[in-house]
Amino acid sequence: MFSSSSPPSWPLDKVFQYIDLHQDEFVQTLKEWVAVKSDSLQPVPRFRKELFLMMAMATDKLQRLGAEVDSVDLGSQQLPGGQSLPIPPIILAHLGNDPKKPTVCFYGHLDVQSAHQDDGWLTDPYTLMEVDGKLYGRGATDNKGPVLAWINAVSTFRALEQDLPVNIKFILEGMEEAGSIALEELIRKEKDRFFSSVDYIVISDNLWLSKRKPALTYGTRGNSYFLVKVKCRDQDFHSGTFGGILNEPVADLVALLGSLVDSSGHILIPGIYDQVAPLTEEEKEMYEAIDLDLEQYRSSSQVEKFLFDTKEEILMHLWRYPSLSIHGIEGAFDKPGTKTVIPGWVTGKFSIRLVPHMNVSMVEKQVKQHLEDVFSKRNSSNQMAISMVLGVQPWIANTNDTQYLAAKRAIRTVFGTEPDMIQDGSSIPIAKLFQDIIQKSVMMLPLGAVDDGEHSQNEKINRWNYIEGSKLFAAFFLEMAKLH
Amino acid sequence: MFSSSSPPSWPLDKVFQYIDLHQDEFVQTLKEWVAVKSDSLQPVPRFRKELFLMMAMATDKLQRLGAEVDSVDLGSQQLPGGQSLPIPPIILAHLGNDPKKPTVCFYGHLDVQSAHQDDGWLTDPYTLMEVDGKLYGRGATDNKGPVLAWINAVSTFRALEQDLPVNIKFILEGMEEAGSIALEELIRKEKDRFFSSVDYIVISDNLWLSKRKPALTYGTRGNSYFLVKVKCRDQDFHSGTFGGILNEPVADLVALLGSLVDSSGHILIPGIYDQVAPLTEEEKEMYEAIDLDLEQYRSSSQVEKFLFDTKEEILMHLWRYPSLSIHGIEGAFDKPGTKTVIPGWVTGKFSIRLVPHMNVSMVEKQVKQHLEDVFSKRNSSNQMAISMVLGVQPWIANTNDTQYLAAKRAIRTVFGTEPDMIQDGSSIPIAKLFQDIIQKSVMMLPLGAVDDGEHSQNEKINRWNYIEGSKLFAAFFLEMAKLH
Repeated sequence: MFSSSSPPSWPLDKVFQYIDLHQDEFVQTLKEWVAVKSDSLQPVPRFRKELFLMMAMATDKLQRLGAEVDSVDLGSQQLPGGQSLPIPPIILAHLGNDPKKPTVCFYGHLDVQSAHQDDGWLTDPYTLMEVDGKLYGRGATDNKGPVLAWINAVSTFRALEQDLPVNIKFILEGMEEAGSIALEELIRKEKDRFFSSVDYIVISDNLWLSKRKPALTYGTRGNSYFLVKVKCRDQDFHSGTFGGILNEPVADLVALLGSLVDSSGHILIPGIYDQVAPLTEEEKEMYEAIDLDLEQYRSSSQVEKFLFDTKEEILMHLWRYPSLSIHGIEGAFDKPGTKTVIPGWVTGKFSIRLVPHMNVSMVEKQVKQHLEDVFSKRNSSNQMAISMVLGVQPWIANTNDTQYLAAKRAIRTVFGTEPDMIQDGSSIPIAKLFQDIIQKSVMMLPLGAVDDGEHSQNEKINRWNYIEGSKLFAAFFLEMAKLH
Repeated sequence: MFSSSSPPSWPLDKVFQYIDLHQDEFVQTLKEWVAVKSDSLQPVPRFRKELFLMMAMATDKLQRLGAEVDSVDLGSQQLPGGQSLPIPPIILAHLGNDPKKPTVCFYGHLDVQSAHQDDGWLTDPYTLMEVDGKLYGRGATDNKGPVLAWINAVSTFRALEQDLPVNIKFILEGMEEAGSIALEELIRKEKDRFFSSVDYIVISDNLWLSKRKPALTYGTRGNSYFLVKVKCRDQDFHSGTFGGILNEPVADLVALLGSLVDSSGHILIPGIYDQVAPLTEEEKEMYEAIDLDLEQYRSSSQVEKFLFDTKEEILMHLWRYPSLSIHGIEGAFDKPGTKTVIPGWVTGKFSIRLVPHMNVSMVEKQVKQHLEDVFSKRNSSNQMAISMVLGVQPWIANTNDTQYLAAKRAIRTVFGTEPDMIQDGSSIPIAKLFQDIIQKSVMMLPLGAVDDGEHSQNEKINRWNYIEGSKLFAAFFLEMAKLH
């Protein structure tokens, strides 16, 4: 897989040498960025301040590269409880304005998922810690590392006083993990201004299929996220004092959540599979061609047994079939110990990953209808409320255009291999958004390895991926200039 | 209900007058005790320190009354994670040693359930706040208020330089909400020493059946608390990256929890009702005699509709039939927001309230067998582990002895009414313990009103209950002396 190709020629050899020599500096910057607790999932002032700090640090970094930076104020968001919180700015930046060069816009996000050391982190999630070449820290791979890799590539050309092969634009946001609030509106607003000169959009916010082999991503599943609240009253009850005479909200909710998916992973909501695109022969062959060591995948995932036994079934159920996951319950007793409480209300959370040609609105209708049917059969005296709080369509790209070809060449140069042509089970709404609004080619060029643990405890990026990824982006700039 | 009886005669008139005049002082002391965050449910050093402070404050208080106090060191407890935490001391105290007087031992606890203002408290749970005669604060009714009412009664005799009508003993613990760790062992150890002179045991750790009418309690349900853990791996997964190919632990757990109880409150575990005592005619009549305004009970409970429509059915399902409550899930996503996580492991928590003649060991066997059957049918690749972490037998008292008669007379004097003779749906393991080990009469003499919200947000005790309760205990001392 890593047969050495011919050594890179000037100016790439200088670029690679520079990146190798300065890798500790690049890791140090990642450490500084990871130290910022830019958690967008917990809507509290404390974390919002960190998000503002994060965006200010990125602005400063880009300005030092010589970029013109516009830090767009987005006002406030109204929370369900009535409070309002400021939304972190979105950074629009550009570097170079040569009409003879193609303009590549890089999208990234600097917010992170929540992380608490007592959730099972071996080290402080906000202190980047290197162990055996792995850089552990919240946001290391999702998405601070890849954003910095792109910046490292640009700064290398600057440091070497090399002309940038392409015009570079940046759009960096701070609310991706919380549904990219205000982003769509801004993209629409900037469509004929900031984005008018953009030819290509690159996103690096997903993972490879393996630990060592690079990948190019041409599609993502969508997602529809549901909250179902069952309420008896606002206050909790004591289970001794009230147990036996109530329709307990948790029992209702457990029945609702238990009606969604069976133990084989099959979704039980009537009609949900009706719109899923039928599997074609061509598609089948594409899946067969993908290089996946199933045993290694299973063991690196630390999963005893998957629901399916073949590579093709597994990949198809991750990419081209919908899935339903129950995330948890808010309002119930969730701490260690033995509290004898009957929660007065509970909110169940689950989401369905969507694939072509499922439609968000239709899914919303089917889910609501199904839960209402189940609840009504229970004849419970509680109140139920269902809401879909996120709805993102799936996305599929055209893989035959310039930037996909350039990326394949750059991957060959840096890694000496062809990429896996893959989809991603995660919904990256921004890919779909750019395609729909800007109508330019969107490519996902991941840097992280399959075992990076984005969204999990002990998230990491390998030093190797981070540094070779910086080289990959630099090589991609040069290939884009050649192919343009 | 509150027709005025004849005015109390000396020395009770002086005692009542003193308590009325000093009620603000008594409330101030309660405020100081509520301010101590003596949370025994969260096994962390921070709260343990508060528990030690609480026990030290109580020791000081009792010593100032002239009691001889033994603060018994109980060593440490080992937590599942391997850490160890010191157990707060149990206070054994006595006041008076006259062989001509009966000796009444009062049991109380000074630890509280967890409370966080953001769980829905309108005010800081640890700052006693009076609104419309209601004293809001964690522990106000469970159990700091009643403990202080007993102390207020004793201190009133002291302040009036009146001889105490009875010898008083105290046993005060700090781990009741966490299963009374180390208490049983201490009672056994002190059986022939501290408890050898005890004639009666009084517990005031439950609630009246109504807002205004006092009650006497002669039985409590037991409880068996279960944890069921389903695990795929230690780390969480991202639902985009892994959704569709896993036996997700939450889905397994929801199926397990959903198999426990139906929407009519009927427990579905095979054999669970086999040992429940059959309902007798005599018992039926006793239930019919109880004075309960169902509409007021419903509305004060803020419950739209109970599972049953008659007073008798409701009380029987609270007192003499078992109930099953699901308390919540540990390890899943429980915070506000929309995290797209597949929890790697989850622990479901539920408990079954036990009634005569159910047996804890048999229930444990039935629950485990049932869950293993359900889990095995799912054919899941996850691991399941079930443990019963608390097991308390139900308790029934003989209501024909001296202290029940004395309490009825005292209630008549203070409140001008007969008490409701009730059971309690909550398990108060200590009642059963005392009966089994000390083999003396155990009585539960509650002070709190039905709407006090023990274990809930916005727990309170009414100033009226707290002050009249102090009088009730004083009157009870005098009646005990008369009847002895």
